[in-house]
Amino acid sequence: MQYVYGFDHEHPRPPMELKDLLGGKGANLAEMVSVLDLPVPPGFTISTEACRHYLDAGGWPPELEGEVDAAVARLEELAGRQLGDPSDPLLVSVRSGAKFSMPGMMDTVLDLGLNDESVRGLAEVTGDARFAYDSYRRFIQMFGEVVLEVPDELFDARIEVAQATAGDEADARMSAEVLAQLAEDLKAVVAEHTGQPFPQDPRDQLRQSIDAVFRSWNSPRARAYRNREHIDHHLGTAVNVQMMVFGNRDERSGTGVGFTRDPATGDAGLYGDFLLQAQGEDVVAGTHATRPLAEMADVFPEIHDELVDIFGRLERHYRDMLDTEFTIEQGKLWMLQTRVGKRTGTAALRLAVAMTEDPNIRLTRAEAVQRVTADHLDQILHPQFEKVDESRILATGLGASPGAAVGQVYFTADDAVAAHQRGEKVLLVRPETSPDDIHGMQVAEGVLTSRGGLVSHAAVVARGWGKPAVVGAEAIHVAGDHFTVGDRRVEEGEVVAIDGQTGDVILGEVGLAAATTPPELDMILEWADEIRADRMSVRANADNGPDATVAREYGAEGIGLCRTEHMFLGEERLPVVQRMILASTPEEEQAALDELLEVQREDFVTILEAMDGLPVTVRLLDPPLHEFLPDYEALLRSQARDGLTEEETTLFEAASEWREVNPMLGTRGVRLGIVKGGLYKMQVRALLEAAALRADAGGRPIVEIMIPLVVTRAELALVRRWVEEEIEAAQATTDRPLQVGVGTMIETPRAAIRADDIAEVADFFSFGTNDLTQMAFGFSRDDVEARVMPRYLDEGILPRDPFESIDVRGVGELVALAVERGRKVRPDITLGVCGEHGGDPASIDFFTEIGLDYVSCSPFRVPVARLAVAQALLAHRSGTD
Amino acid sequence: MQYVYGFDHEHPRPPMELKDLLGGKGANLAEMVSVLDLPVPPGFTISTEACRHYLDAGGWPPELEGEVDAAVARLEELAGRQLGDPSDPLLVSVRSGAKFSMPGMMDTVLDLGLNDESVRGLAEVTGDARFAYDSYRRFIQMFGEVVLEVPDELFDARIEVAQATAGDEADARMSAEVLAQLAEDLKAVVAEHTGQPFPQDPRDQLRQSIDAVFRSWNSPRARAYRNREHIDHHLGTAVNVQMMVFGNRDERSGTGVGFTRDPATGDAGLYGDFLLQAQGEDVVAGTHATRPLAEMADVFPEIHDELVDIFGRLERHYRDMLDTEFTIEQGKLWMLQTRVGKRTGTAALRLAVAMTEDPNIRLTRAEAVQRVTADHLDQILHPQFEKVDESRILATGLGASPGAAVGQVYFTADDAVAAHQRGEKVLLVRPETSPDDIHGMQVAEGVLTSRGGLVSHAAVVARGWGKPAVVGAEAIHVAGDHFTVGDRRVEEGEVVAIDGQTGDVILGEVGLAAATTPPELDMILEWADEIRADRMSVRANADNGPDATVAREYGAEGIGLCRTEHMFLGEERLPVVQRMILASTPEEEQAALDELLEVQREDFVTILEAMDGLPVTVRLLDPPLHEFLPDYEALLRSQARDGLTEEETTLFEAASEWREVNPMLGTRGVRLGIVKGGLYKMQVRALLEAAALRADAGGRPIVEIMIPLVVTRAELALVRRWVEEEIEAAQATTDRPLQVGVGTMIETPRAAIRADDIAEVADFFSFGTNDLTQMAFGFSRDDVEARVMPRYLDEGILPRDPFESIDVRGVGELVALAVERGRKVRPDITLGVCGEHGGDPASIDFFTEIGLDYVSCSPFRVPVARLAVAQALLAHRSGTD
Repeated sequence: MQYVYGFDHEHPRPPMELKDLLGGKGANLAEMVSVLDLPVPPGFTISTEACRHYLDAGGWPPELEGEVDAAVARLEELAGRQLGDPSDPLLVSVRSGAKFSMPGMMDTVLDLGLNDESVRGLAEVTGDARFAYDSYRRFIQMFGEVVLEVPDELFDARIEVAQATAGDEADARMSAEVLAQLAEDLKAVVAEHTGQPFPQDPRDQLRQSIDAVFRSWNSPRARAYRNREHIDHHLGTAVNVQMMVFGNRDERSGTGVGFTRDPATGDAGLYGDFLLQAQGEDVVAGTHATRPLAEMADVFPEIHDELVDIFGRLERHYRDMLDTEFTIEQGKLWMLQTRVGKRTGTAALRLAVAMTEDPNIRLTRAEAVQRVTADHLDQILHPQFEKVDESRILATGLGASPGAAVGQVYFTADDAVAAHQRGEKVLLVRPETSPDDIHGMQVAEGVLTSRGGLVSHAAVVARGWGKPAVVGAEAIHVAGDHFTVGDRRVEEGEVVAIDGQTGDVILGEVGLAAATTPPELDMILEWADEIRADRMSVRANADNGPDATVAREYGAEGIGLCRTEHMFLGEERLPVVQRMILASTPEEEQAALDELLEVQREDFVTILEAMDGLPVTVRLLDPPLHEFLPDYEALLRSQARDGLTEEETTLFEAASEWREVNPMLGTRGVRLGIVKGGLYKMQVRALLEAAALRADAGGRPIVEIMIPLVVTRAELALVRRWVEEEIEAAQATTDRPLQVGVGTMIETPRAAIRADDIAEVADFFSFGTNDLTQMAFGFSRDDVEARVMPRYLDEGILPRDPFESIDVRGVGELVALAVERGRKVRPDITLGVCGEHGGDPASIDFFTEIGLDYVSCSPFRVPVARLAVAQALLAHRSGTD
Repeated sequence: MQYVYGFDHEHPRPPMELKDLLGGKGANLAEMVSVLDLPVPPGFTISTEACRHYLDAGGWPPELEGEVDAAVARLEELAGRQLGDPSDPLLVSVRSGAKFSMPGMMDTVLDLGLNDESVRGLAEVTGDARFAYDSYRRFIQMFGEVVLEVPDELFDARIEVAQATAGDEADARMSAEVLAQLAEDLKAVVAEHTGQPFPQDPRDQLRQSIDAVFRSWNSPRARAYRNREHIDHHLGTAVNVQMMVFGNRDERSGTGVGFTRDPATGDAGLYGDFLLQAQGEDVVAGTHATRPLAEMADVFPEIHDELVDIFGRLERHYRDMLDTEFTIEQGKLWMLQTRVGKRTGTAALRLAVAMTEDPNIRLTRAEAVQRVTADHLDQILHPQFEKVDESRILATGLGASPGAAVGQVYFTADDAVAAHQRGEKVLLVRPETSPDDIHGMQVAEGVLTSRGGLVSHAAVVARGWGKPAVVGAEAIHVAGDHFTVGDRRVEEGEVVAIDGQTGDVILGEVGLAAATTPPELDMILEWADEIRADRMSVRANADNGPDATVAREYGAEGIGLCRTEHMFLGEERLPVVQRMILASTPEEEQAALDELLEVQREDFVTILEAMDGLPVTVRLLDPPLHEFLPDYEALLRSQARDGLTEEETTLFEAASEWREVNPMLGTRGVRLGIVKGGLYKMQVRALLEAAALRADAGGRPIVEIMIPLVVTRAELALVRRWVEEEIEAAQATTDRPLQVGVGTMIETPRAAIRADDIAEVADFFSFGTNDLTQMAFGFSRDDVEARVMPRYLDEGILPRDPFESIDVRGVGELVALAVERGRKVRPDITLGVCGEHGGDPASIDFFTEIGLDYVSCSPFRVPVARLAVAQALLAHRSGTD
């Protein structure tokens, strides 16, 4: 096994595809050198394999020393200078470079190769002693901190002394003498702290720096970053050793960063900044006034032309928009880095489409579809903040529903509605939300809660409406007419902004950039649909006609989950539902059910009309009955304080009777349907009567009746018999044949395991991966998401929040098992998913792999799902996943 | 395929082993005829196959008609009479006979073959017209009700008329004339109700009767019975057609039931009753005064001798105690039925041991072990009621902890303690119990709750103490100082009895038969242990020294589950625990933990001492923290009513903060251990310091540290690192090597699925099948057991309560998967089970099959588990399971 590769090494495959081995930076450097023959300072890459060996075994693989020596010798030959040459030393940088970019997380050492002798040679050969000693003292400090772990405050003290000595010159430009003395002082700090003199042998410096880069892979902040970004801890980093070039050498020198096109708009033409007589850090740091790249044509016309040429070659080669760093040293252009450039959502869409037409690039439609990410679409589809001042961020919760919202804070739904009626823009802030808060959520620009997770009520409802929401912002303590964050107190009516993507909660007004959808959006989505056709469809979760209409506009090919619980709520219906619950005779119960039948039939008619010709999957009532009764605790409090009226007492007794210790695992779903037999029959009758009405009206209703929370075949078989009786009754009322399927949610682990039994009586399965995740993990999302999940994610105990992205190895295995067993018994069974995971690209990738027939997600997520399904299919087709 | 077998058919295997095919009754009749050559009225059996065909296809298999005809012809030949012969008719009985006895559940037709002609022949040939017409009118009524489904009240009306006609003779002895007229009247009823005359053709009568027996398999009461008794609905019943003999024929006739030994004590010698000039029903009905079998020697000395001889042959042949029915017709003995006799626990043990020594039987020890059931041991080990008057049964709940208890009812733990101190025997009655009720439960004879299931707090605690309990008696409404059942009101201090096996709640005193353990108990258990040796051990769930001592006395070979939560309770400890929870600084928290460390170390020393030399599996804290805080609702009520003190406010805030929506799926187990890092470290330190103290004192502590509720390898790996640090620290204090293992509960579905990952860092798994069942089904036992489970069991939606006996196809598959994956990674991993299923014989059978290393159950259940494990091993060895 070879561990070290010169940038000019001839790899059997294009180096740009070898990021696993060479890291991102190393792979692109090798591509520029060995394939494109661009002017890149010579150097070599130590592979990630070497790093993994170092981390596992605690030291270098035996071959590495010899390989590094050989690579250094070759570098010296190419550079025409020797490491540590006292007269004209070669200086190198040592940089990390992992497969996935981890900006600022790992260590870098610059100007390596300087020592007490060579610094003098550098001064002489450049004729710039100040430059030489400034480089030396910077190297000593950087090496000291990064490699030798000397606390930086020890260096700072000496630097302050030097600055004081320099007097008025201050830090701007210390003299060569002051800098030489500072170098001596810093070496003394190192010697004192480590008990060893500062290493003078450049090979020694190099070896220690490589070790330090390897080690930095496992630094706490690097680990935390990877946990946050879901990057595998086992990848390791490559190390790039490269000849230093100096943009600050003289007036014919400079440095810059450039994009091959505008990353904000996708417009063609050079885009970027440059600085004369400066080093790369100066551009990034923002301490110097940079100039737009276009102006370079005036200053360095040849370099500008060379850059235009290089950018063109890079684009033709990578067939994408590139981001580059370059340095000009004494009139010569050096390319230091390139990579595929980050871009805005708009730019992503426009670039993708434009590049299918660009004769130099000619992206295929499939490639164009792969160039746009879910985040890009989120940017396009939801308003975003223009720019946020970090100091105004009050707290960060979970970004639960994307988009940015600004409004005056109110703490009850009623207050929010009142303020909205006064014409205010409102942000509803609650500890958590419940169905009681719906009217306040409806009028709010956005919703902020201090508790709850990504699948809490607030999160699910807000996503369903495409309304921005931040949930589980635990630092916020809501108390009556204000909330506090630490010492900070925010009163009712103050303006607060939330970013539903980052989870940031910001005090005061923040400018919003409205969502604008470029025409390229529809093109890309249509191309995605072509790829998906006949493979996997995308449905929406929608509970009423208007939502179904929106979903269809966003491209939904049916409803995967129509929850019926909302049909039991509302001022007029709730009392009827309560009458049903409180009924003391079967007749009373039936009377209430008959009343509900009338209104629910109307609900179903509007939904079937909006989705005419497409399947509508209706889930029979799922939540426990106590959700339709007044809050038990409120009644308890009233009882203790003032006593209850007779009517309240009746409700209190019912609330008490139906209350449960673990409602998630209680009398809900099909259990409730069986215990309260009339309920499901009423729902099915309302639905089928609606279907018959639609059929008679010339429509094409396609109905799928879904039974929730099934654990055994017998439950489904029992309800199926009821349904079949109702189908027969409804069919008798119309000449048009009714198209009705009966199936079940697979949302308990047992149902997944015994999917074979259940498939015998199911026309379809819809995986309820929210509940399946709750039960497989034993995680109540209401409880664990806020209290346990952040800790688990920070410490890497879980690689990702399993409610956000499906846990492939655990929950995913249950789903895959159910797919296999269900299809074995009934090969034509329709399989879909209607949990929150249906809109998550990583989860969609998994669902595609195991061959589900559709995913269903909230209407506003449908475009993302259409894209993600196509991308997943392409990834599996090309075998790159 | 053959469907009909004469009793004398030569089967390739002994018919007694063919109950699947012939049903129990048919198999034993064939055994008596074809193998033992006993005097049995001739007949034939229609197999269960025929019944299954009838039920599936809705009619007889085509071959059946011919086979029945042939069998009838052969029967007529053997009997020397013809069906329907007008001069001397053959009469037959048609009886059901399923594999498992279902007494009274299915239909029987007697005296078949009578019609208007043959009844006269019967009168003539017997010289007893009264007998003939009585038989005929009985046959018409029975056939009418059973086969033709004529409502019995229609017949009753006519019988009343006949009785009125008979006048003073009344029902005792109606005259032949009256009976003949009654037969005519009853036929008229049939004709009127069915629109058809009463069938006169005996073949027709037979065919219809066979159909009726087949159909009766699926009668609602038969289905309900099978649901209750966990009998498969697909088995079907056999039908036995047999020549009638008449014990009521004359004074040389009679009938009786006899056991080959005393089924109550196991003592040798005939045991049973007989009646002169009577039919079998008369003995069973208890309407006639029966005489003990021993007296038969005076009345029918030859018959008595013949019976003694037959009983001896039966015992030698079956090698067991038999239960028989016989009839004497005109001085000839006929054996009508035999089967292995039911027996008391004492008799079972004594018989099993005695038969190993009986030279005619020579049971092996393995066979003797198989002759005793878990129910037998329960009878032996717990006091039982002598006899219960059914009318006094107030309600029936779930029998949660076996044994009988009588006491005065009290409704709070404090009242129970006060009454106990006054010297009363107390029965604690609560809606449900919590740790707050422990002191009341301790002094009570038994515990009765109106809510909760078989694994509710009351049930688990009571079983742990071997104290009788009935839970979930939903008919009971507890209200302050009394409870009601319907209109019945029971005041504090009234006497109530509960049967912890049947679940009966009985008003008033009931005599108790104290538990007596015959010396044979230990012998049988030792023989069982020999069979288990090196295959599967039995541990106990015990949380303190005294319980551990009891467990060891009952034969426990270690502790499989030592819950540590009780170490956090009690008047002195709870305030310290609360200080830990409320701590506002790490120092305060640590101070509280240090205090707990001291007391817990003492707890562990006593447990390790009691189990010296045997493994002690200690589970680190599992329940959520709010269980250690005051009741939230009580505080809420106080707050609303009177306001709270400052101290109460603090507790209220903490209770509110730690409260959870679904505590079962919340911040408990290892999650709590990680969120509150100091807690587990303290527990581990206390345990290991205790182990070191025990080792220094010359003991041999074997410690297994068990981490609850793990879902991923990373959780266990993290805690394992903490444990290993503590092991190192504790080992440094003693020269004796400490024996410590670290493992986990497998109680979430995800942990079962990813047992391979988890096994990498686990020395053992203990399956927590209670929680695994809750999560796999999504059944909160607190909620579903009372509200949903009874319905599901009655309707056969679930074959058994999965909390009582493991759900093999669902939860069992998860366990089996975890066993396979865990062993693959770590072949020497120790695997056990510590849920309630560890004491359930059917579950133990499954655990044996998948090769667990031990089961763990409550101390009082250990003898049952020892027996059940041996039986399961024997069953699998012989392949009869």
